[in-house]
Amino acid sequence: MELKWVNIILPEIKELSRTKNFKRLREFLRERHSADIVDLLSGLEPTEKVVSFRLLDKIKSSEVFALFDSSEQEELLKQFTEQHVRTLLIEMEPDDRTQLFDELPADVVEKLLKLLPPAERKEANELLNYPQNSAGRIMTPEYVALKMHMTVAQALEHIRKTGLDREIIYICYIVDETKKLRGVTSLKNIILANPDQFIKEIMNENVVYVHTTDDQEEAAKVVQKYDILAVPVVDNENRLVGIVTVDDILDILEEEATEDFKKMAGVQTIEDEYFRVGVSKRVINRIVWLVVLVIAATISQTILKGYSEVLTSMIAIAYFIPMLTGSGGNTGSQSSTLVIRALATGEIKTKEWWKILLWELRVGVVLGLILGFIAFSIAALSTKQIAMATTVGISLFSVVSVGNIVGVSIPLFFRLIKLDPAFVSAPLIATLLDATGLIIYFEIARRILVTTTS
Amino acid sequence: MELKWVNIILPEIKELSRTKNFKRLREFLRERHSADIVDLLSGLEPTEKVVSFRLLDKIKSSEVFALFDSSEQEELLKQFTEQHVRTLLIEMEPDDRTQLFDELPADVVEKLLKLLPPAERKEANELLNYPQNSAGRIMTPEYVALKMHMTVAQALEHIRKTGLDREIIYICYIVDETKKLRGVTSLKNIILANPDQFIKEIMNENVVYVHTTDDQEEAAKVVQKYDILAVPVVDNENRLVGIVTVDDILDILEEEATEDFKKMAGVQTIEDEYFRVGVSKRVINRIVWLVVLVIAATISQTILKGYSEVLTSMIAIAYFIPMLTGSGGNTGSQSSTLVIRALATGEIKTKEWWKILLWELRVGVVLGLILGFIAFSIAALSTKQIAMATTVGISLFSVVSVGNIVGVSIPLFFRLIKLDPAFVSAPLIATLLDATGLIIYFEIARRILVTTTS
Repeated sequence: MELKWVNIILPEIKELSRTKNFKRLREFLRERHSADIVDLLSGLEPTEKVVSFRLLDKIKSSEVFALFDSSEQEELLKQFTEQHVRTLLIEMEPDDRTQLFDELPADVVEKLLKLLPPAERKEANELLNYPQNSAGRIMTPEYVALKMHMTVAQALEHIRKTGLDREIIYICYIVDETKKLRGVTSLKNIILANPDQFIKEIMNENVVYVHTTDDQEEAAKVVQKYDILAVPVVDNENRLVGIVTVDDILDILEEEATEDFKKMAGVQTIEDEYFRVGVSKRVINRIVWLVVLVIAATISQTILKGYSEVLTSMIAIAYFIPMLTGSGGNTGSQSSTLVIRALATGEIKTKEWWKILLWELRVGVVLGLILGFIAFSIAALSTKQIAMATTVGISLFSVVSVGNIVGVSIPLFFRLIKLDPAFVSAPLIATLLDATGLIIYFEIARRILVTTTS
Repeated sequence: MELKWVNIILPEIKELSRTKNFKRLREFLRERHSADIVDLLSGLEPTEKVVSFRLLDKIKSSEVFALFDSSEQEELLKQFTEQHVRTLLIEMEPDDRTQLFDELPADVVEKLLKLLPPAERKEANELLNYPQNSAGRIMTPEYVALKMHMTVAQALEHIRKTGLDREIIYICYIVDETKKLRGVTSLKNIILANPDQFIKEIMNENVVYVHTTDDQEEAAKVVQKYDILAVPVVDNENRLVGIVTVDDILDILEEEATEDFKKMAGVQTIEDEYFRVGVSKRVINRIVWLVVLVIAATISQTILKGYSEVLTSMIAIAYFIPMLTGSGGNTGSQSSTLVIRALATGEIKTKEWWKILLWELRVGVVLGLILGFIAFSIAALSTKQIAMATTVGISLFSVVSVGNIVGVSIPLFFRLIKLDPAFVSAPLIATLLDATGLIIYFEIARRILVTTTS
C-alpha cells in the first residue's frame, strides 16, 4: 500500500526538484514519515537526493539518515560539507551512531569522531568499546532516570524538561546517587498516580535487566518474555548505563532468524546485506561446508566400492540410489528443522529428549511405511521384479525411519553439549544419511537379491 | 539468569504451598513479573498450581493465564469454578481472549462465550469473525481515542480517566464523530505540549494503518518499518476498530520465521506447538512433500537406466554418484536459502533478478572450480585413473555451477509469478539437482571414459 504510494508520488518530487520549487518540496517532505522519505529519496538521482535531503529539518534528517543502509550512508557522507556532517552526527541517536560507525571503514570513523564535540565523542567511543553484538554496543544512553524521593508531580516536571532528547519516555528507571538501578515505573503509572505520591511508592523494585556484555539476543529474549518496551542495561557495578528499546529488538530478532537460516543451509554467518559481500567473501562463507561435505561423501564412495560385487551382480540396484539417499536426507532435514526451530523458540526443552525421540520414532515409522509402500510399487512397475521391489521398499522404510531419528538426535546432542543446534545444517544431515542409507540398502539387497538371484 | 532464579525459588514456593502459608505466598507472588510467575507455576504439581493461581489478584491472574500455552490453559480452566472462569475471562485483554478461543475446541468456546456479559460476548464474537491470521483477529479494541477539538489538558484528563483499561496509552488516535481515523499523536507530544494547545495542532494527519482483513504479517511490517509502538486497524469505511501492539508483533515475527523454516524443510505449516500435534497430523504435514520427492526421484532412476550401458562399462562411475548429486543439492540449498531470506527481509528486490543471477553465476563458478579440483584429487587418489578423475572433477565443477544458479532461479521465479518463494524447499531443489547432476555426469563420462577406455 505504502510502496505504491511512493511510485505515484515520485514523479511529482522529481518535478519539484527539477524546477527548484524547494519551498513546496520542503513542505511536502515535512509531512512524511522518515521511513517513507527514505523510500522516496532512494528513487531519486544522487544530486536530487542530496538536494532533497538538505531540505529536511535537523531531527528529521538525522532520523532519515539513520534509516538508510550503510552503503547509501557512506555515499551521502561523501557529498555533504563537513559542517553538515557534524550537525547530522550530533543530532543522531547514540545507538544509530554506533551502528553507523560499526559499518564504515575505520579511517572514515576516525575522521568522523574528530568532528564530534568532546562529550559526544567520549560517549561514542565508550559505546564502540563494548563487544560486537553485545547489549552495550546497541544500547542508547538516552533514558529517563528518576529518583526515589521525587514526587509524581516532580517526576512529571523532570520528564517534561528532559523528555525531548530521550529515545523513550514511557519507561522510567529509578536510580540512586551512585547511579545504581533501584526500580522501574511507567509513564502510565505516573500519569494515573496522585501528584503527591512518591515515585518510590509506584515503582517496581523487581527490575529485569541485562549486562553490557550480554549478547543482544539475551536482551531480545528479555523484552519478548516480559512484554516490555525497553530493557535497562547495567554495568558490573549494577549502574544503569543505557537501554535497548523494542524497535531495535525487532531488528535483532530478524537478524538472528537470518543467521539461523544461513546456518541451516550450511553458510557461515556474516551480517552484511546480500550485495554488500564481495564474491570472494561469499565464496569463503560457503566453501567450508561444501568442502567438508565433498570429503564426507568419500565415505559413500568407499561404501559403494565395498559393495561393488553386489552392484555388478545386478546393475538395477544403482538406479534406486538417488531415491534412497534422497528420501533419507529429506526426512532428516524435515525432522531436524522442526526440532531446531522448536528448541530456538523454547517450545521444547532438552530434558524432554526421550519424549522427543519416542515421538519422532513413531512419526518416522509411519512415514517409512507409506513411502516404503510407494517405493515398492514404483520399483515393481519399473523393474517387474518382486525381489527388487521388496528390496527397495524395505530399504526405503528403514532409511526413512532411521533418517527421521538421526535428524532429531544430532541437534538434541548439540544442545546437550552446549553447542548451537542451528549449526546442524540440512546438508550435513543429508550427507550423513547418504552413507547410512547406502549401507542399509546394500545389506538388504545382499540378503534378498544376491540370495534369490544366485 | 532468570531461569536459574526460578530453580532456586521453586522449593521455597512448594514449601509455602505445602505448609499452607498462603499469606506469605501471596505477598511473594505479588512482587513477581507475570512471565516469571508462569515459569514458577509450571514447575508445580497440578493442585499446587491451582492453589497458587487463586492467590493472584484479578489483573495479575488474567495476565498470567494469558501467558500459559493453550494446553495448560485448557487444563487450568477444567479445575476452576464457573465463577472464577467468568472473572478471568472478563479481566483478560480482548486480544488474549481471542487467542485463547482460537486454540480451544469449539464446544468449550461456546460454553465460555455464554459466561461473558453481553457487551464482552459481542466484542469476542466480532473479533472471532475476522479471518484467521488477519489484523482484525489479533487486534485489541482497547486504545485511547481523542477528538481534534480537545485541548492538551482535556486530553490528558481523558487519558487519566480511561487509561487504566487501555492496553497502551502512549499512542493516541484522533477520530471524528463517525469514528473515522483522522490523526495520531503520542503521549510524549501531549506531555511536552502546552496545556492550552488543541490536539489538532499536535497531531500527525499522516497516519499509517492497516485494514481488518490485512494479513498479520502486513501489520508486523508496518510496525517494523515505521518504528511505532502500535498500528491502528480500520474497517472498510476507514473507522478505527482496534490496534495491534508491538508486543504482539514480536510474537508474529517469531511465528512467521518458524513458518518459513518449516516451508524450507518441506513441512506444511501448522501453527500448533511441537507436541500439540498428534502423530497422524504431523505425518500428514510432512508426507505430501516426501511423496512428491520420492516420485520425482523416479526421474533419476529413469536417467540411470538410460545410461546403464555407460554404467556397466565402468562400475566405478557409480561410486561417485552420491558425491555428485550431494554437492549439487548442497550448493543449491545454500544459494536458495540466501536468496529466499534476502527476499523475505527486503534486502533484494525481484527486479534486480539479472544482477542476482550474474552475481551467483560468478560465485558458483568459483565454488565449482575449488570443489572440482578437490573432487579430481580424491578421485585420482582412490581410482588411480586420470580419465576417471577428470570426469569426476569436470562433472563436479559443472554440477556446482548449475546447482548454484538453479538454487536462486527457482525462488526468484516463484516470486515473479507471485508465489511465496519460501515454498521452494531445500529438498525440492536437491531432488531437481539430483536429476540434472546425473545427466551432466553421465554425458561427461560417456565422452571421456567410454571413448578413452574403449
